[in-house]
Amino acid sequence: MLREYWLTGLHPDSPASAIETNAANRLLVAARDAFAANGYKGTTTRDIAAGAGMSPAAMYIHYASKQEMLFKLSLLGHGSCYESLLQAVDMEAGPRRRLRAAVYDFTYWHAKHHVISRTIQYELKYLDEENYRPVAEVRRKIHSVVEGVVLEGVRTGDFAVGDVSTTTLAILSMAIDTVRWFPSRSMSDPATLAAHYSALADRLVSGQS
Amino acid sequence: MLREYWLTGLHPDSPASAIETNAANRLLVAARDAFAANGYKGTTTRDIAAGAGMSPAAMYIHYASKQEMLFKLSLLGHGSCYESLLQAVDMEAGPRRRLRAAVYDFTYWHAKHHVISRTIQYELKYLDEENYRPVAEVRRKIHSVVEGVVLEGVRTGDFAVGDVSTTTLAILSMAIDTVRWFPSRSMSDPATLAAHYSALADRLVSGQS
Repeated sequence: MLREYWLTGLHPDSPASAIETNAANRLLVAARDAFAANGYKGTTTRDIAAGAGMSPAAMYIHYASKQEMLFKLSLLGHGSCYESLLQAVDMEAGPRRRLRAAVYDFTYWHAKHHVISRTIQYELKYLDEENYRPVAEVRRKIHSVVEGVVLEGVRTGDFAVGDVSTTTLAILSMAIDTVRWFPSRSMSDPATLAAHYSALADRLVSGQS
Repeated sequence: MLREYWLTGLHPDSPASAIETNAANRLLVAARDAFAANGYKGTTTRDIAAGAGMSPAAMYIHYASKQEMLFKLSLLGHGSCYESLLQAVDMEAGPRRRLRAAVYDFTYWHAKHHVISRTIQYELKYLDEENYRPVAEVRRKIHSVVEGVVLEGVRTGDFAVGDVSTTTLAILSMAIDTVRWFPSRSMSDPATLAAHYSALADRLVSGQS
């Protein structure tokens, strides 16, 4: 429920006793929206508190700084994306179907959650070093899951890939770039985009070049 | 020389009489670097003036606002990218070779000029509407050049593409996302990346799905 809330910004039906947690969550949602609108450097803690309908003093009960909120959003966001990806590839199937499932899921996640995704992809460089480290660790795991499927396909002979590392990068990159433009006038359905990109990823691992 | 200067930030060997133009250029380079480091919203005109070693008052002789500088950078950047792309595809060759040349050039441009590219790709939303319009026009032209080559290949039967519009988007997207991460520890040569991506784009238009 915590996760759903910061991702979607929709109020969960929560008991009154959960009011403090909700205030912390409201702040995360406000931070997410402020960072997406004005960038991390263009956002003040005052903006975030105002977005959550709180005073700066009330905000500091929950978060010591906007850095702490960026860190929390980055870690939750990457964690959610990673778990979703793990579930997607956890199937009894050959590498071709597993790669399609992975790319479908990864693209869908970024398109669906494009507001939070924009922040966690583009504001990453503003994380303090000790905060960056655990986030980078989740990013490496995400890369490894997809690279693992590509390598498996090369091993079984299902895929013909020139450079595994660059191909994996290109597959992830295509999906991540979604957060720059999604939704557009001609493409606003995460599922349609995910289906297209999953078919395109299949092409990237096929062929002879 | 004007273009080279704001792209690279290197001082051209210019006669003393060009000193006023150079001040304007120095400001563009300072704006480019400040936007890349802190985002448009996180940058003040004072930051830009300081970056160019000028007073805010001296800056206003050249640019009325940071919006004007973002507009100028966006227009010059997109223009340079578009002209480079046009030259790349201007050859007597079939669609396969022309697409490879287009993707090589487009990827190389973004990797080589990743600092200015980051600003013109990610800060686009901060352009005022009347400034956005001419920039969007150049973006449409860039898209059209690549889509034109894809369509030509479909017509000649060289390419087998499911959805021309989404495939074109994916090809451009892959290259544009370069500005998010380039250079990385494992990839820091624009030419190597451009060669990889040009081969991958070839796969995206081949095959049967």
